[in-house]
Amino acid sequence: MKPTHIEHIGLAVRNLEESIRYWEEVFGLQCYRVEEIADQKVKTAFFKIGDTKIELLEATAPDGPVARFIEKKGEGVHHIAFAVADVGTALRSVEEKGIALIDTQPRPGAEGLEIAFLHPKSTYGVLTELCSKPPAGQQLS
Amino acid sequence: MKPTHIEHIGLAVRNLEESIRYWEEVFGLQCYRVEEIADQKVKTAFFKIGDTKIELLEATAPDGPVARFIEKKGEGVHHIAFAVADVGTALRSVEEKGIALIDTQPRPGAEGLEIAFLHPKSTYGVLTELCSKPPAGQQLS
Repeated sequence: MKPTHIEHIGLAVRNLEESIRYWEEVFGLQCYRVEEIADQKVKTAFFKIGDTKIELLEATAPDGPVARFIEKKGEGVHHIAFAVADVGTALRSVEEKGIALIDTQPRPGAEGLEIAFLHPKSTYGVLTELCSKPPAGQQLS
Repeated sequence: MKPTHIEHIGLAVRNLEESIRYWEEVFGLQCYRVEEIADQKVKTAFFKIGDTKIELLEATAPDGPVARFIEKKGEGVHHIAFAVADVGTALRSVEEKGIALIDTQPRPGAEGLEIAFLHPKSTYGVLTELCSKPPAGQQLS
């Protein structure tokens, strides 16, 4: 497994609209997409910067992972996502090296990507996401 | 102020050697530089990935900022650094917008860059660094 670049950095925020304004007005970035991911109980907003993105995450339910994160740690960096050629292959590679997985199989994420999370207990405290574009013509459902 | 890219992501780690092995063996990245920054009481290790870097930070003294961070929050993402054309100009720009600063003036950072930190109370919990290359022939001392 060798990621090509950092696909995005996920930031947990309490208020999506307010945080979008911060990144637009203070950093001069442009929010190009807002998307709700129902099964993750989050609403997301994306900004492009260089070859990576900032993904803001606002909880849509108090029992979702982002709501629990903010309750425990406050707002801030939630995860780092690495772009790989194929998430399934990358998962097998890191699992062979003894890394604990949150997702044992790829699942659909924001922006049509296939994603999977590694467990922070194996990654020195960094909640780590792997993501790849699904093969042309295919999309996980 | 408009950053061009994410210059690096700083990760607080307990043991630099062990974490370097993780990023090399599991992620296939190559550590290209280890540097001690005496006034920050840290030893750093760098990996290039796409147009950004991962910077590992191990405390060299129990009263330094990284040691205190790990004591409070454990290992994990410590800060995000944005590349800007000129840190001094960027600091004035964000200060005018009401952002609290940790550093009111640029100071020397790793890899010969000029750096300054914004206060996470103004940045939605994200400890934020701005950095730029000093003008040719100049270096902060």
